[in-house]
Amino acid sequence: MGFRYEIRLSGSGGQGLILMGIILAEAVGIYDGRYVAQTQSYGPEARGGSSKSEVVISDEEIDYPEAMKLDLLLAMNQKSCDDYFSDLDPEGLLIVDSTFVTQIPTSKAFQIPFTRIARGKFGREVVANIIALGALTQLSPFVSPKAMESAVLGRVPKGTEKLNRDALRTGISAAKQTKKQWMETEMPPEVPKEDLLDSY
Amino acid sequence: MGFRYEIRLSGSGGQGLILMGIILAEAVGIYDGRYVAQTQSYGPEARGGSSKSEVVISDEEIDYPEAMKLDLLLAMNQKSCDDYFSDLDPEGLLIVDSTFVTQIPTSKAFQIPFTRIARGKFGREVVANIIALGALTQLSPFVSPKAMESAVLGRVPKGTEKLNRDALRTGISAAKQTKKQWMETEMPPEVPKEDLLDSY
Repeated sequence: MGFRYEIRLSGSGGQGLILMGIILAEAVGIYDGRYVAQTQSYGPEARGGSSKSEVVISDEEIDYPEAMKLDLLLAMNQKSCDDYFSDLDPEGLLIVDSTFVTQIPTSKAFQIPFTRIARGKFGREVVANIIALGALTQLSPFVSPKAMESAVLGRVPKGTEKLNRDALRTGISAAKQTKKQWMETEMPPEVPKEDLLDSY
Repeated sequence: MGFRYEIRLSGSGGQGLILMGIILAEAVGIYDGRYVAQTQSYGPEARGGSSKSEVVISDEEIDYPEAMKLDLLLAMNQKSCDDYFSDLDPEGLLIVDSTFVTQIPTSKAFQIPFTRIARGKFGREVVANIIALGALTQLSPFVSPKAMESAVLGRVPKGTEKLNRDALRTGISAAKQTKKQWMETEMPPEVPKEDLLDSY
């Protein structure tokens, strides 16, 4: 029995979660060469504007593509954090967009203001998802920065390559810095101070 | 126990199957309001350039998102037709891009030259997938043209809305015409004659 690693990306419709899921799956599956299943489900809640995308990674063929016990949950808004936290394995990793998620159900969470960074550094909220992908790249053991960059560039609209590459790298830096803060203080990472934003 | 309808879209990487799957799922799930699960899987074959996307539609929550016995198979190249035909239910519907699929394993198949139409009518092979979505809209009972048009326009790059709307409508017409031919002759539909292409 091989390993199985389950990721759920969640938030509001319009935050680009479906595209994130596809890019992540392609990075791991095509560029890094593992088995990956990537699923999005729609039901009545889709009309309410919630959105989620799941990526399951394995070293063998995946029979059951739906996530059962999450190893990584990305919550881009408060509702998705509230709704899905209970699906996260106790050893699992919670990453939140602290622009919108302010009530964190665990002291062990990576809090990074993806949307605030997108707005402040790029003037474009729309790249918050790519910044978050950068953070995932840094915090998950299953995707290399090189594979992720290839996958991002293969999916974003023509003419936005530089913007998205910069956004990805910003997310990688932000996660590195948050991790470093965490290790230095042996405390859960805090939302980075505004004056740190420039250093991402 | 409610209904369950399983669709697989298959072909080569670069034919836009992932985007097709997402648009189809969003049309049915968000705009038409059913339960939908949409999955793509990557494995060693992804490196070989094959691509597939699955959409499962139900009137109740979907526990198992992977297709088991297909109700509809779209094959955009010969290899995917060869590989997946055996997964199609005997009562299921096979739709092929007859530009590339020339050996058809059943007499009951809709043969429409999506790529040839895309090239001939729009000068853009890239819209073959949207033309195929139009055909699916016409041939599957689960998606309305209005929902599909909204879903397409919500996902295609800015500035290409008219092109894609026209491509979608062309696909709907092509499927209508192929169906009509089939019913008139009580014979399996043939690849439309070149001189019919203009009328799509």
